[in-house]
Amino acid sequence: MHIDHIGIAVEDLESAVETYEKLLDGQCYKREVVEDQQVETAFFKTGQSKVELLGATAPDSVIAKYVAQKGQGMHHVAFEVDDIHAELDRLREEGFTVLSEEPSRGADNKLVAFVHPKDNCGVLVELCQEQDG
Amino acid sequence: MHIDHIGIAVEDLESAVETYEKLLDGQCYKREVVEDQQVETAFFKTGQSKVELLGATAPDSVIAKYVAQKGQGMHHVAFEVDDIHAELDRLREEGFTVLSEEPSRGADNKLVAFVHPKDNCGVLVELCQEQDG
Repeated sequence: MHIDHIGIAVEDLESAVETYEKLLDGQCYKREVVEDQQVETAFFKTGQSKVELLGATAPDSVIAKYVAQKGQGMHHVAFEVDDIHAELDRLREEGFTVLSEEPSRGADNKLVAFVHPKDNCGVLVELCQEQDG
Repeated sequence: MHIDHIGIAVEDLESAVETYEKLLDGQCYKREVVEDQQVETAFFKTGQSKVELLGATAPDSVIAKYVAQKGQGMHHVAFEVDDIHAELDRLREEGFTVLSEEPSRGADNKLVAFVHPKDNCGVLVELCQEQDG
């Protein structure tokens, strides 16, 4: 298990990309819209892990609501696992609240699922697994 | 530049360590008090990066204030750099607000300095550099 990425909720994706290009002294290498989540993502490589900027594509997007309520900032941390189904079963048995029955398709060609922040000291935790193909 | 760790502000370090041992399916490998910052840290390895839990050791600790105001959750992300002085100079030239003139000694035998969240879409960014010896 390693940190695949941290997700940062931003108000304006264009200006956030400019900011993080300066901060990280590197280029955004991928932009991707995830329709289901009404979010556009922008990725930066930082060693083994990535920084994912998250901008809302609609006013009722979960990211728009997050920014309106809490302001911009770190939204989640994602851990890459080898077998997301087995890991979700393990976490459920340990008493963690998994936010979906089954993993769904997220950005970056991953299967993803989330663990409720109340169980992780306020941290929204994503598990992700690279998909074949 | 890679993600050295994410820092998570917690209310009760003992119970947070138990939680993260279950979540990450691994043991906390180091505990360290940073007197200057009135904080006790607990580290977990997750690939190239670490998870650092941060518990206050005094009521007026910056972490105690953070938890009182914002609740538990992700507090900062730290990027390891080869030359922290050069990197801070570069960021100052780019217009970022560095929160100290000089890096100071942080947990985990690092030189550390912070960049103001207002410049990074609400994210408190730490730069850190491994010290010799």
